[in-house]
Amino acid sequence: MRQAGRSLPEYRKIREKHDLVAITQQPELCAEVTLQPVRRLGVDAAILFADIMTPLLGVGLDVRLVENVGPVLDQPISRAEDMERLRPLEPEQDVPYVLRTLHLLRTMLPPEVGLIGFAGAPFTLASYLVEGRPSRTYARTKQLMYSAPALWAELMNRLAGIVSTYLTAQVQAGAQAVQLFDSWAGCLSVDDYRAYVLPYSANILRAVADAGVPSIHFGTGTSAMLEAMREAGGDVIGVDWRIPLDVAWQRIGYDRGVQGNLDPLALLAPWEVLANACRRVLTQGQGRAGHVFNLGHGVDPSTSPDTLARVVRLVHGEDA
Amino acid sequence: MRQAGRSLPEYRKIREKHDLVAITQQPELCAEVTLQPVRRLGVDAAILFADIMTPLLGVGLDVRLVENVGPVLDQPISRAEDMERLRPLEPEQDVPYVLRTLHLLRTMLPPEVGLIGFAGAPFTLASYLVEGRPSRTYARTKQLMYSAPALWAELMNRLAGIVSTYLTAQVQAGAQAVQLFDSWAGCLSVDDYRAYVLPYSANILRAVADAGVPSIHFGTGTSAMLEAMREAGGDVIGVDWRIPLDVAWQRIGYDRGVQGNLDPLALLAPWEVLANACRRVLTQGQGRAGHVFNLGHGVDPSTSPDTLARVVRLVHGEDA
Repeated sequence: MRQAGRSLPEYRKIREKHDLVAITQQPELCAEVTLQPVRRLGVDAAILFADIMTPLLGVGLDVRLVENVGPVLDQPISRAEDMERLRPLEPEQDVPYVLRTLHLLRTMLPPEVGLIGFAGAPFTLASYLVEGRPSRTYARTKQLMYSAPALWAELMNRLAGIVSTYLTAQVQAGAQAVQLFDSWAGCLSVDDYRAYVLPYSANILRAVADAGVPSIHFGTGTSAMLEAMREAGGDVIGVDWRIPLDVAWQRIGYDRGVQGNLDPLALLAPWEVLANACRRVLTQGQGRAGHVFNLGHGVDPSTSPDTLARVVRLVHGEDA
Repeated sequence: MRQAGRSLPEYRKIREKHDLVAITQQPELCAEVTLQPVRRLGVDAAILFADIMTPLLGVGLDVRLVENVGPVLDQPISRAEDMERLRPLEPEQDVPYVLRTLHLLRTMLPPEVGLIGFAGAPFTLASYLVEGRPSRTYARTKQLMYSAPALWAELMNRLAGIVSTYLTAQVQAGAQAVQLFDSWAGCLSVDDYRAYVLPYSANILRAVADAGVPSIHFGTGTSAMLEAMREAGGDVIGVDWRIPLDVAWQRIGYDRGVQGNLDPLALLAPWEVLANACRRVLTQGQGRAGHVFNLGHGVDPSTSPDTLARVVRLVHGEDA
């Protein structure tokens, strides 16, 4: 459950003294924050605590993480000259703390708890870089994509290179699986996704496969493009709550896994409503191997940790 | 093309002197604003100029339309007592200017140009009332829906009553078809849509059918719930750009029409890219009766009016 930590008081306490970037850059602290939801909630795997911008901060991009807003660039990417701001990533130099955090986590985690690496996908990263801040419409991003296809290809290639290197390094440092988050790709038509996004995500997912670990390919609002996401790659395809899990899995094909797909806002419902929603997801998963129970998106910060823990128990069959 | 007027200089000139509510309340001015895109762009139908909040302002709800934000309620709807703020609509008393605008438009429009009425659907209206302002997650709305089902039903019933009365009055005043906009219903799972939204939209669409005109049932992000939207009703189902039009129509069934589904941001692309996107929509419509060419959502204000006019000519076969 991504961003589950945000709802935990022990995480908030750490955040009072350290900002997000500071946490990611201190391996002991970052490992602690990564472990908090594992300890408190009893989930089956730990997900590296990092920001989607961590690798781009690593290559020196001037992006600020603004509280309650998100990534902000005072000078958004718009011209050929901006490409130089995205040099290749050298993990040992640029994000040594991420690698050290993963090493630490592998020594700290019990063997039955998996360790999952994490990176944003090129389109989602590009949308922040081009818009300069979070967007509802992605107007500038689409305009660049349509109007300057060569520049777009260059931007996506550079991002795909950075992300491939970043995830491969995470695997070498101990990640046993990785998630590629294309949170905003669902704003595109299927044709645009295929033309402007798929090849770059595919390059990354191929590199991860070559590194020898399974990958989870995640997006939201992707009900219409699940087949194309499958084509891009990923051993497991993330499915948000908009589409019933069984319908999604049938379209994706049973030779791939699926991850999902509880509406994170169902966690704000009374227990019986929430429990029914969880049971529906489990029923639609039909107990097949390859269903990873999860939320369709990140945890809302107002969610009760006790509720999260109870959902985990229900999924584990320990709470009716 | 909804909100096409926003991109027109002649509309902006009027907006310098009159705010949105003032325009809707002055029938001559409102008719003029409704006609502007028809004159400039050569579209086949005029859509009543109104705000989604017009009927709620009519019943006296304390909602403000804030420039560059949207509808804002300083006291969002949250408790049983708030229901009294939503009394039934009496169109002749509460929104006489809307009826007068439609009467005027029928005398002004050439007979070959259709006149389409317009209202927001209960879920989309409720989301504004419960959130108090536009939202990305609809957390409060979903929380109310899950936690207080009786209050939710009461809210949706009251809104459905208001909207039914409002649209029926629009038909009596001269609207030859109506659009029901459920812009944000796509944030829900299909199961939640069926449980918490469908019955109320269905009541409205039945009332419109009884009034004897066709209806267009519109939403965005609805790729997973098209069958449920069809079930709720509408002679024509609106389809956004995320799903290919032919795939959507097959799922909806050819006994209904479809409206769509160009990405409004494709209007910012160079002409050849845009023209190809338009042609793709037309190809996917396969020339079947019942395809209404349109955008998947409102026009971005930065769109060039010349581009909009050229798209209309292309669709009419007057521009290759």
